[in-house]
Amino acid sequence: METLLSQYIETRRKTEELCAPLHAADYVAQLEAFASPPKWHLAHTTWFFEEMILKENCADYPLFHPHFGYLFNSYYNAVGKRVARAQRGGMTRPDIDAIYAYRKHVDRYLSQLLSTPVSRAVAERITLGIHHEQQHQELLLTDLKYTLGRNPIYPVYHPDFSRVADGNEAAGWLEIPEGIYEIGCDSTGFCFDNERARHKVYLQDYSISKALVTNGEFMEFIAAGGYEKYPYWLDEGWAWVRNSGAKSPLYWHEIDGQWHVYTLAGLRPMDHRALLAHISFYEASAFALWKGCRLPTEFEWEAASGRLQWGLRWEWTNSAYLPYPGFKAAPGALGEYNGKFMINQMVLRGSSAVTPKGHSRHTYRNFFHPHFQWQYAGIRLVK
Amino acid sequence: METLLSQYIETRRKTEELCAPLHAADYVAQLEAFASPPKWHLAHTTWFFEEMILKENCADYPLFHPHFGYLFNSYYNAVGKRVARAQRGGMTRPDIDAIYAYRKHVDRYLSQLLSTPVSRAVAERITLGIHHEQQHQELLLTDLKYTLGRNPIYPVYHPDFSRVADGNEAAGWLEIPEGIYEIGCDSTGFCFDNERARHKVYLQDYSISKALVTNGEFMEFIAAGGYEKYPYWLDEGWAWVRNSGAKSPLYWHEIDGQWHVYTLAGLRPMDHRALLAHISFYEASAFALWKGCRLPTEFEWEAASGRLQWGLRWEWTNSAYLPYPGFKAAPGALGEYNGKFMINQMVLRGSSAVTPKGHSRHTYRNFFHPHFQWQYAGIRLVK
Amino acid sequence: METLLSQYIETRRKTEELCAPLHAADYVAQLEAFASPPKWHLAHTTWFFEEMILKENCADYPLFHPHFGYLFNSYYNAVGKRVARAQRGGMTRPDIDAIYAYRKHVDRYLSQLLSTPVSRAVAERITLGIHHEQQHQELLLTDLKYTLGRNPIYPVYHPDFSRVADGNEAAGWLEIPEGIYEIGCDSTGFCFDNERARHKVYLQDYSISKALVTNGEFMEFIAAGGYEKYPYWLDEGWAWVRNSGAKSPLYWHEIDGQWHVYTLAGLRPMDHRALLAHISFYEASAFALWKGCRLPTEFEWEAASGRLQWGLRWEWTNSAYLPYPGFKAAPGALGEYNGKFMINQMVLRGSSAVTPKGHSRHTYRNFFHPHFQWQYAGIRLVK
Amino acid sequence: METLLSQYIETRRKTEELCAPLHAADYVAQLEAFASPPKWHLAHTTWFFEEMILKENCADYPLFHPHFGYLFNSYYNAVGKRVARAQRGGMTRPDIDAIYAYRKHVDRYLSQLLSTPVSRAVAERITLGIHHEQQHQELLLTDLKYTLGRNPIYPVYHPDFSRVADGNEAAGWLEIPEGIYEIGCDSTGFCFDNERARHKVYLQDYSISKALVTNGEFMEFIAAGGYEKYPYWLDEGWAWVRNSGAKSPLYWHEIDGQWHVYTLAGLRPMDHRALLAHISFYEASAFALWKGCRLPTEFEWEAASGRLQWGLRWEWTNSAYLPYPGFKAAPGALGEYNGKFMINQMVLRGSSAVTPKGHSRHTYRNFFHPHFQWQYAGIRLVK
Repeated sequence: METLLSQYIETRRKTEELCAPLHAADYVAQLEAFASPPKWHLAHTTWFFEEMILKENCADYPLFHPHFGYLFNSYYNAVGKRVARAQRGGMTRPDIDAIYAYRKHVDRYLSQLLSTPVSRAVAERITLGIHHEQQHQELLLTDLKYTLGRNPIYPVYHPDFSRVADGNEAAGWLEIPEGIYEIGCDSTGFCFDNERARHKVYLQDYSISKALVTNGEFMEFIAAGGYEKYPYWLDEGWAWVRNSGAKSPLYWHEIDGQWHVYTLAGLRPMDHRALLAHISFYEASAFALWKGCRLPTEFEWEAASGRLQWGLRWEWTNSAYLPYPGFKAAPGALGEYNGKFMINQMVLRGSSAVTPKGHSRHTYRNFFHPHFQWQYAGIRLVK
Repeated sequence: METLLSQYIETRRKTEELCAPLHAADYVAQLEAFASPPKWHLAHTTWFFEEMILKENCADYPLFHPHFGYLFNSYYNAVGKRVARAQRGGMTRPDIDAIYAYRKHVDRYLSQLLSTPVSRAVAERITLGIHHEQQHQELLLTDLKYTLGRNPIYPVYHPDFSRVADGNEAAGWLEIPEGIYEIGCDSTGFCFDNERARHKVYLQDYSISKALVTNGEFMEFIAAGGYEKYPYWLDEGWAWVRNSGAKSPLYWHEIDGQWHVYTLAGLRPMDHRALLAHISFYEASAFALWKGCRLPTEFEWEAASGRLQWGLRWEWTNSAYLPYPGFKAAPGALGEYNGKFMINQMVLRGSSAVTPKGHSRHTYRNFFHPHFQWQYAGIRLVK
Repeated sequence: METLLSQYIETRRKTEELCAPLHAADYVAQLEAFASPPKWHLAHTTWFFEEMILKENCADYPLFHPHFGYLFNSYYNAVGKRVARAQRGGMTRPDIDAIYAYRKHVDRYLSQLLSTPVSRAVAERITLGIHHEQQHQELLLTDLKYTLGRNPIYPVYHPDFSRVADGNEAAGWLEIPEGIYEIGCDSTGFCFDNERARHKVYLQDYSISKALVTNGEFMEFIAAGGYEKYPYWLDEGWAWVRNSGAKSPLYWHEIDGQWHVYTLAGLRPMDHRALLAHISFYEASAFALWKGCRLPTEFEWEAASGRLQWGLRWEWTNSAYLPYPGFKAAPGALGEYNGKFMINQMVLRGSSAVTPKGHSRHTYRNFFHPHFQWQYAGIRLVK
Repeated sequence: METLLSQYIETRRKTEELCAPLHAADYVAQLEAFASPPKWHLAHTTWFFEEMILKENCADYPLFHPHFGYLFNSYYNAVGKRVARAQRGGMTRPDIDAIYAYRKHVDRYLSQLLSTPVSRAVAERITLGIHHEQQHQELLLTDLKYTLGRNPIYPVYHPDFSRVADGNEAAGWLEIPEGIYEIGCDSTGFCFDNERARHKVYLQDYSISKALVTNGEFMEFIAAGGYEKYPYWLDEGWAWVRNSGAKSPLYWHEIDGQWHVYTLAGLRPMDHRALLAHISFYEASAFALWKGCRLPTEFEWEAASGRLQWGLRWEWTNSAYLPYPGFKAAPGALGEYNGKFMINQMVLRGSSAVTPKGHSRHTYRNFFHPHFQWQYAGIRLVK
């Protein structure tokens, strides 16, 4: 269990490291239902270990606080009632110190549990909890960026925040021949239930771009009147443009004729060669149509992924988030992890600059509603 | 062109025949944006022939009325502005007589156009217009049922309205082996652009029910507390149940302890052996999960369709409405017919008791948002 | 009872006369919750006599139809459930013929009831029913105008529709001295409960305009940027302007640089000397402030009314609709007639060109929410 | 200017004293648009002095920060754009330390300004700023209570928080005779523009309760089914009950059959003799009707106020918030202080347990929309 314990400890440490630059008030604010406060992420990931592992598998585990199950449950009906998502930002108490104490408490018992051999089932649940916390590491930064980015004074999270050298080192198109491909996870390593079962799909010939779309390319779309011309847009995408008033990706600001982009390092002049991010599926789809191309399906993406550079942006695919053949949700609360969201969302593949290292894989399926812009999502074209 | 002309005439006649039992006020009322009034269907189908065929291909065609293009455009941005969908019921004028005169006017010129040979392109457009009008024949009845069915006095559309003997003549499961299947339309006959290109898909083994779910079977789901138990529901389906207050399929009424169903022939005691209809995708999905089964994908449905009895209910599939490989929207207004709706909707296969005879086929793709109940949609299970 | 019977008959006849120019579909359409269809007005006024008089006071009265009490109740909780206001337009059935038969049925029994002496209480209720029907005569035209006026082809209700010579014959200001004035109804004739009790109010000096504001004067407000300048507007008025996109009174259309006004006689070039109508309280208030004046209170209006020409437009006052001292709602259903609406509405005084002759009086209190434009409401200034 | 300076300093100190018990996150959270975070109140009151006094009257005043005018403007269109009300809780930055520095900065220059004689106009503006800050002291506590009170763990603001001994020392009815009364402010001391001009009103005889309604009395209303019986409610009040699901005053919780009340000292068992608070106008109106009484008008309240004990609860009156005769909004930004809100709100008189000492007076007019429960509002009856 040495490895699992050290993975656990490292993941838990990493979450807290991400919070080091936060100011006190940053922990609690929530502007929209979809962007939870950092304090909630710190507590909810801890609650997951308490609820899903310690309560059942640690005989003498003392609940840290009787109300925390209610306060920090996200969406598990099986576990009981919970604070409404849009009200997470109202929880000024418990204080952040209490949350860190909660983390320590759970860490102590979890470490103790792992100090002796555990069953395979328990080990798998802890592994799931680690991956769950990694997902929230990314959400924590993404949500935080949304709150800071809406602030008119454009606060800096960290002046050195730059996860990767943004930009394409690849160029050109990769040709993939028609045929049967194997899709989904078969490894003995960890994967989520929605990556299973591994199965065959039949793909037609296609060419997939080795490079992702850059800010500069998207600027051309804007300059060509892309946001004002309905033929490029899905019908609900066009309604979204008109209702939201969107005229550019999220975090783009035209100031005195010069485009700027808000980043976690503050407001910066736009770098045209940098990779585009923070677009909705509707924008991705419209851009692709304008280019005379289309978005890949998630299967096309996966089949080509071994020969693509990826990992800088989540990549919108034209696949709806639906179960694979043979998909079966787990019984009980964990069955609510993925399956119940398989409607009205689109799949994103790859990973982004704020995804924890090693968290994603080429079978990984991320998913969001098509109107959301706040993720680090970009575009790869297919023709 | 004889055949095309007679098809045209027959289709146009049929639409008007459906309106014969209507009372004057039935032509105009609209309760919800999605349920257009009969008058609008009569006019819009006519507008389609005027706008898409006569204006371009009939040199001396005199517009029937300069405003009708504005009044009876449905969703074609390329054609220009239009009356908002939810406001169609406000058009008390033009009178129904003017609409019938509009139909005669267009029929005269269309018949004249077809009295001499037309190009293949024009013939194809007219064929499209015929299929378009057939779609609206079904919508006309479906929408009318919604308006009449919300009326507390349960008006009768036609006392003999009973399109088919409802009920299953088939039973048991059909086993389909794993392998490559051809999907989509390749016929030289008519099909919509969304049925193309014909392409290969790889399917896993599955068993598909020969019979559709009956009212009686769905009653068991209700009796088992199906509408009160979250584990059967998709997350957004559960939200739909709570927000809509749905406790049964649309048009079901429990009166003095006895279930009744509103039909176009009036309110009737429920027939337990009759085929279930008027459920949302969410209800279909929840029922299937409760049964330990699932819904077919549209590919599974099509691959099995040759050996299934179908045609009594539209059948919700677990496939999102997305483009087939090689799909290309037509240029201009007709390109808005299908492609721009390929987001957030689920595919239904088959046809229903109110679908015009001969309109559907085994490659036909119908699609609606998952919360809608007002279509004649039912359930076929897969395991 | 002769007089009461003839009043009844004349009022009932008048309502039907107003419907004579209607086309079949006009009877049923409803675009917004606030604008009920003519058929509903015809039936609801009849229901009032059935429910409030015949059921209690006519021993052998046979209900015309068991469901009509449900269908045509407006807002009387005491009487039971009812069709939701926004769904009135969905009642394509019962047919208009049935509604006219309903009217005849009730008329027969009501006439029979009045053929012999009735108690004072019954006579008072019948009188209330007559005034109630007169209110609905005005609403019928006002609501109809809204439905026809939103129709892009601007239908004509009646080509000769012109109730009064629009325009001011009066000019200048009337000076009213400070002092005690008697307000409210004390006559032995009919008045609504909200006009009672007659009571003293103390008014300060004021000058009230003898003339109402004209279209031409309001055009100056528009030309001065009135709809773009927040300082003229109440805070919620300014929000209304931005959310509704209002740029002019209702039914004004600028076509090729020329202002037109929709009337029940069709679209007409604007007459600058005609009296302004169809403005919200917010617009009235903003116009008055722009003019350096204000709107009268309802008490100032009433105190001056004997010396004013009025009757062409309902006149927005700056008084909220609240009970007079000693106001007491009647017991039972009739107690819901007025009192329960005494919140969030503003009082209008006078009467309009479509108010039935003899219906209003100088103590009459009309009331609407401040954002509504669809009434024949205009402006009289005070300084 | 000594007195004004010391008033200023004392008021500023008091605001900060109220914040002493706050935890870091309490400063920033905002659950609803109407309940602003403490940090915003601290900054906005400071902005008022900067914007309304220092910028114009202190020649060498250096703006503390160029963005603060945008961040902390509340609703003054004349001053320019501003952060949307519902987004105030998103401003995690500037940090609370910066806000306190802002306060110190403004205090230094304001104190300097007051160290030499200032014009009467400047003195009046500073006095207005002091009263403005006192209003926000009360709002700060009221808004904070809302945020803490929605938290499932019922945080304690201060364990000793109990401003006054709650309860009635008075009983019985005060008889006020018919006649002319003088209403509004004529003092040479401070009052808001909405209290002017002082004017005569004519009142009828009435009896006003010396005592306010207690929790125990309101419990009887609940026990009598008050929230389930429409006849007690205004029509929009009844809609509010059904839509909000209200079943008791805000902050009341029935736990294991025992009523509790959330207070700023935490959750407490209900004291039946304590004065009722946190009810909407609709609840006040319904309670009064159930009791066979009514609410006073604001004029009745003021005429009797010299002989009433008041100051523990804001008291809903049945008067709409409208201008007094001769009311004239000031020119410029300060003209937006009161006048533009004179629509759709009801007047409350008196003051509450959290109103700063000396802030209110018998001519003071507070005002809120009728559905709001979050103020310390109670009921005084009239018959």
